[in-house]
Amino acid sequence: MENFVAYNPTKLHFGKDVTDILGKTIEKFGKRVLLVYGGGSIKNNGIYDKIISQLKSIDARIFEYQGIKPNPVYEDVDAAAKLGRDNNVDVILAVGGGSVIDSAKIISITIPVNNTCWDFYENKIKPQKAIPVISVLTLAATGTEMNPYAVLQNNKTKQKWGYGNDLLYLKHSFLDPQNTFTVPKNYTAYGITDLIAHCLEAYFGKGDASLSDSFVYAIIKEAIKYGPPLLDDLQNYDLRAKIMYAATAALNRTTLYGRVSGDWGVHSIGHVLSLLYDIPHGASLSIAYPAWLKFQKNNIPDRIAELGKNIFNVNTPDETITAFEAFFKSIECPLKLSDIGIEKNNKQIIFDGMISNKVTGMNHKLNPEDYEKLIDLMLSPL
Amino acid sequence: MENFVAYNPTKLHFGKDVTDILGKTIEKFGKRVLLVYGGGSIKNNGIYDKIISQLKSIDARIFEYQGIKPNPVYEDVDAAAKLGRDNNVDVILAVGGGSVIDSAKIISITIPVNNTCWDFYENKIKPQKAIPVISVLTLAATGTEMNPYAVLQNNKTKQKWGYGNDLLYLKHSFLDPQNTFTVPKNYTAYGITDLIAHCLEAYFGKGDASLSDSFVYAIIKEAIKYGPPLLDDLQNYDLRAKIMYAATAALNRTTLYGRVSGDWGVHSIGHVLSLLYDIPHGASLSIAYPAWLKFQKNNIPDRIAELGKNIFNVNTPDETITAFEAFFKSIECPLKLSDIGIEKNNKQIIFDGMISNKVTGMNHKLNPEDYEKLIDLMLSPL
Repeated sequence: MENFVAYNPTKLHFGKDVTDILGKTIEKFGKRVLLVYGGGSIKNNGIYDKIISQLKSIDARIFEYQGIKPNPVYEDVDAAAKLGRDNNVDVILAVGGGSVIDSAKIISITIPVNNTCWDFYENKIKPQKAIPVISVLTLAATGTEMNPYAVLQNNKTKQKWGYGNDLLYLKHSFLDPQNTFTVPKNYTAYGITDLIAHCLEAYFGKGDASLSDSFVYAIIKEAIKYGPPLLDDLQNYDLRAKIMYAATAALNRTTLYGRVSGDWGVHSIGHVLSLLYDIPHGASLSIAYPAWLKFQKNNIPDRIAELGKNIFNVNTPDETITAFEAFFKSIECPLKLSDIGIEKNNKQIIFDGMISNKVTGMNHKLNPEDYEKLIDLMLSPL
Repeated sequence: MENFVAYNPTKLHFGKDVTDILGKTIEKFGKRVLLVYGGGSIKNNGIYDKIISQLKSIDARIFEYQGIKPNPVYEDVDAAAKLGRDNNVDVILAVGGGSVIDSAKIISITIPVNNTCWDFYENKIKPQKAIPVISVLTLAATGTEMNPYAVLQNNKTKQKWGYGNDLLYLKHSFLDPQNTFTVPKNYTAYGITDLIAHCLEAYFGKGDASLSDSFVYAIIKEAIKYGPPLLDDLQNYDLRAKIMYAATAALNRTTLYGRVSGDWGVHSIGHVLSLLYDIPHGASLSIAYPAWLKFQKNNIPDRIAELGKNIFNVNTPDETITAFEAFFKSIECPLKLSDIGIEKNNKQIIFDGMISNKVTGMNHKLNPEDYEKLIDLMLSPL
């Protein structure tokens, strides 16, 4: 067991109608609010009106930034930060999924500086302070609502990177499972894949941490048990709640205590696919994880087998990989690149993307000589 | 799944030599330090010297309160609070197990008021602020290092109660498994029993929370797997670490999310036994829990069977109870009152203690008409 720090100051409000106290929670930080959201779906499902009503109840001055993209780009963050800076906002309210909340986190540290936010990603500057951020989550997937990480992409440099800093912890997150009722079936499934992948990144991380391993098994089994029935019953409150909390628990550090770090190699591959082809994050992971497991199965057979034993009650690395593939397929997530229309002629493009993104892993390092094999495994039929 | 708030602001530093940064961590809060500890064992095992050296490195002004009892009493808290108040301390450093840290938490809210601390327990006053508290844990058991609860007893009124308030969260806790190396075998076992009991209190609490149930299973299985080998190898770092982290996870709210509350009926029974006979907390629980399970087995057979299925792979309530008893016995914890020398002529005394402590439960309510049966179950041979 490795030394670790357990710390998570975010206050998570979970359950039915928790946003009823959103206004008075925001008011503690001030009334000048930068409201950040995505393509506008919250205007169709009633969430926008609910939020605005809460903000009006405290006579908030609202500055809106609409249009954060599903794979969020740094230009939006810079533009939203300028809006916030020019209007001297007290607090940022992020309403959406991982892309919106990740963007809001980086906006919060960009407002106080006169740099592009990408300078943080390139480690040219370090954040010294952050505007408080509060989130209303509308998609169960990334866990960003209770962690200090944010992923952004830069289409100019063809890079999609994660960034972590304790200043990125949100002050409050509001998780009402009802706010996920209108998430369509495919995106609900991608969220399930994403939360499973987060558990696996922890499991394949550095350091022996038996209890954190058991938490990994528990969360993945929760997703496998309650995910498929949810996909057949998208407005079932209790199933939405189970998956929503599982997604938070999968990446609020609970699975990391006792380790030096997670691995994150598969995420770095997935990010390249999303960057190049604008595919949903979860869909990139159901392709990349089986490939990575196949690539690693002779390097870490016992570790993969132990996972399969505890999740699926199977015994070998091959059976474990087959069981994960069968699960991803059962929830209609893609398993290979051709499932999303990416054929073999893209090999060089993907390879170049992996090079420019310095794809690796924090425990099981990947090198450029591994990339070709990994790409083949993502391309090849089952 | 019930609505819940997930929030835990304590920063936990876990691992080898983490107290190397104790001094500079304390210094952020000030240099006037109230040092609180127990009977003085820390002076024999080197921990005291290590702490003093850290305090000297920041030129701290130290005010010492020695002598917190294993079952801590309110008079010590009042006296230590007076010492802190008279000397205008900036921060409290608690070095010890649950009794010392629980006392320090209540000292922290008593210093700012002119009341006896027992007024908090009787709800005569509410805390408005707290002096910052930092802990160095020397016993893996109660989980107090990362939760907002504290238990004290009042020998005059014959009451031993728990108290909870968000102000009681510690600022920092330092958990170095090496600091538990000199805990003797019996107290190590009581700590294991205590952490299992905390999981069970959550499991039998109010509200359906499948993932929290799985976390309960994971933590109890960790204790059952690594507890017994630790008892045969008391200076094994990795085993000490596993049990120490399991004890924290058992009561840092991780097992409670999705529930209205835990049950805590068995703890209230155990507190009466500790109050009356000064027996270690964990030893009271290995007697009280099997009795409570037997008392409840016809009321909640499915819930008890589900627990046994997941922990021991057994199928019935009776098999579940037998398996817990066998485990407690295997680690030499008492199973009935006569194991600790309390015979049947004590029945009325225990009954009266349960009355004056208003023994009940937050989910499965216990009434005075239940007490006699519970006492019989604690007295009767297996």
